[in-house]
Amino acid sequence: MTVLNVGIVGTGIFARARHLPSYQELPNDFKVVAAFNRTKSKALDFAKVAGIPEDKVFDNLDDLLKDKDVSFIDALVPVQFNVATAEKAIAAGKPILIEKPIAANMKQARELVKLADSTPLPIGIAENWLHLTCIDVVKPHLKRIGPIVSFTHNATGPFVTESKYLATTWRQHPEHIGGFLSDGGVHQLALVTHLVGNFGSVSALTRQLRPESGTDDIVFSTVQIKDSDVIGTFTYGSAYGATDKSVFLKIYGKNGSVVIDLSDKRNSVVKVQVGDSAETAGKEEVYPVPTDESFGVDSEFLNFHEAVVKKDKNLYLGNTRAAFHHLACVAAFLESASKHGANVEVETI
Amino acid sequence: MTVLNVGIVGTGIFARARHLPSYQELPNDFKVVAAFNRTKSKALDFAKVAGIPEDKVFDNLDDLLKDKDVSFIDALVPVQFNVATAEKAIAAGKPILIEKPIAANMKQARELVKLADSTPLPIGIAENWLHLTCIDVVKPHLKRIGPIVSFTHNATGPFVTESKYLATTWRQHPEHIGGFLSDGGVHQLALVTHLVGNFGSVSALTRQLRPESGTDDIVFSTVQIKDSDVIGTFTYGSAYGATDKSVFLKIYGKNGSVVIDLSDKRNSVVKVQVGDSAETAGKEEVYPVPTDESFGVDSEFLNFHEAVVKKDKNLYLGNTRAAFHHLACVAAFLESASKHGANVEVETI
Repeated sequence: MTVLNVGIVGTGIFARARHLPSYQELPNDFKVVAAFNRTKSKALDFAKVAGIPEDKVFDNLDDLLKDKDVSFIDALVPVQFNVATAEKAIAAGKPILIEKPIAANMKQARELVKLADSTPLPIGIAENWLHLTCIDVVKPHLKRIGPIVSFTHNATGPFVTESKYLATTWRQHPEHIGGFLSDGGVHQLALVTHLVGNFGSVSALTRQLRPESGTDDIVFSTVQIKDSDVIGTFTYGSAYGATDKSVFLKIYGKNGSVVIDLSDKRNSVVKVQVGDSAETAGKEEVYPVPTDESFGVDSEFLNFHEAVVKKDKNLYLGNTRAAFHHLACVAAFLESASKHGANVEVETI
Repeated sequence: MTVLNVGIVGTGIFARARHLPSYQELPNDFKVVAAFNRTKSKALDFAKVAGIPEDKVFDNLDDLLKDKDVSFIDALVPVQFNVATAEKAIAAGKPILIEKPIAANMKQARELVKLADSTPLPIGIAENWLHLTCIDVVKPHLKRIGPIVSFTHNATGPFVTESKYLATTWRQHPEHIGGFLSDGGVHQLALVTHLVGNFGSVSALTRQLRPESGTDDIVFSTVQIKDSDVIGTFTYGSAYGATDKSVFLKIYGKNGSVVIDLSDKRNSVVKVQVGDSAETAGKEEVYPVPTDESFGVDSEFLNFHEAVVKKDKNLYLGNTRAAFHHLACVAAFLESASKHGANVEVETI
């Protein structure tokens, strides 16, 4: 067992509410040892909760990066700073885990892929939805339903006025494309593309329902999966009035179907039906999805841990090429919407 | 009370399985008095069940149309014959109810609209989904959820190998555009457009999953509602392997949402949530939809009855302009799909 020492860059809400607890749940693998935040008082508050000594709360990123005790950087900064932060980490020889989406725009995303390609260091994007427990539940059944022919992904919900995440200024005045559509959308896209395949092209319409969103906040799209016959729809947005939180991915195969229903985070299920027609359909099978309070973050950290310890960047699932694709899908949604729903190819590297 | 005498043209499955029972359930309004079918033996069989005397089983449409006892024609013929049949009925001065879709293609559909416009006689398309009981249930609540902003319609199901409807040669070798996509699709489109508004443009992908379908049998589409900001997705097809029969329309408003869930025909429900955000959301209200074994056909017949008796063609809901739009949406799906999902305007009259 190797304990990796984590340097946290950006000690905001998610660092405190989720990353720190996950590191603390895995004391055999991680120890949070250093922190930096633009507003130092916040870093000091975080340090108290994290048990970081005051002299390991740094005044700038460069000093933190020089700290030999730090095994890797966990950067939770507004995404427009992802490239610069990664650049410095690589220069300092530190592996880095970066918050999704990969970057604020496709130009930066491409830069980050190149940066990651240029180093043997693991450069990971924290795409925790690639590690959802539902994936392990559904994967063995996907083979049973035969070749995939189409899918419907629907993730819609009510606007949460008092969301602490929403209240952050970088979300209300997004410098990253798509605002909430990329912020939360890449999560949805990680799940869908991981199970169904990368998107080849999309025809999308978007709208801004809430001034608080800063930009368009719902997307309705038709999707063509790359290099295949698979087609589907992708619907995402949590800017509505009262409505149920509905998150489901239905995958239709030639020999059956599966539904991953994440509408209730703590009681998620996978439903499976096998058979090539109504007459030969087996009984519906329902598999509970094990609850993971970290919603994939613990597994993601362990996956990054493995890549760092084994010095093999390819072991990490949320690599920059995967994350590039997720943001590229959002970029394609926006481009298509700007052309009134024209079919648009998803950018490739 | 006025009993209208019905002349049935085309005595196939649906005439026997649904139209005749509906007329028989409404003896104060209808009496089936005459029949014609290309294969006379089938008309004679039908006549026995319907209680039609043998001399009212005609050898050709013209003779049936000359029969002064017949108040109106109910034509259940393959849709490529709709225009010619309507033309003759109008020439004979008889109102006519015609099976959906309105015609085999948009050229014919336009001809039928012109024909209907040229006469004061009621020319109705049997769009029974315009008369589903769920519509009465949902309408009062639609106002409560404020202006509509988007919608998701999903109607997918398993392939029913032994369907008696599927076995008809005109379905297996369709002369009408879209095959099953228009045959069943116009039902779905009747419901959606009646509640949400006419489609302005679509971006669609289609596929043929079953050789038995004769042509493409699934459609996944993004939709822009005409002259409005409303956007949504429309998904339709019953050509899958084992999967649940899922038929739902979710309408999101600025002040809440409604879901019409018709997945279980006999236990359909309307779910309503009112409120402008998660915090102000009221409790979910669930309204059962009264079961109607005729699935709208009885109400549709009574609506046509009223139009005929009052000599006011505008009273009938399933008029040729409404039905034209439903087929035009299918035509737009197909055109968009042929252009790999390009955005396509829906034809207008």
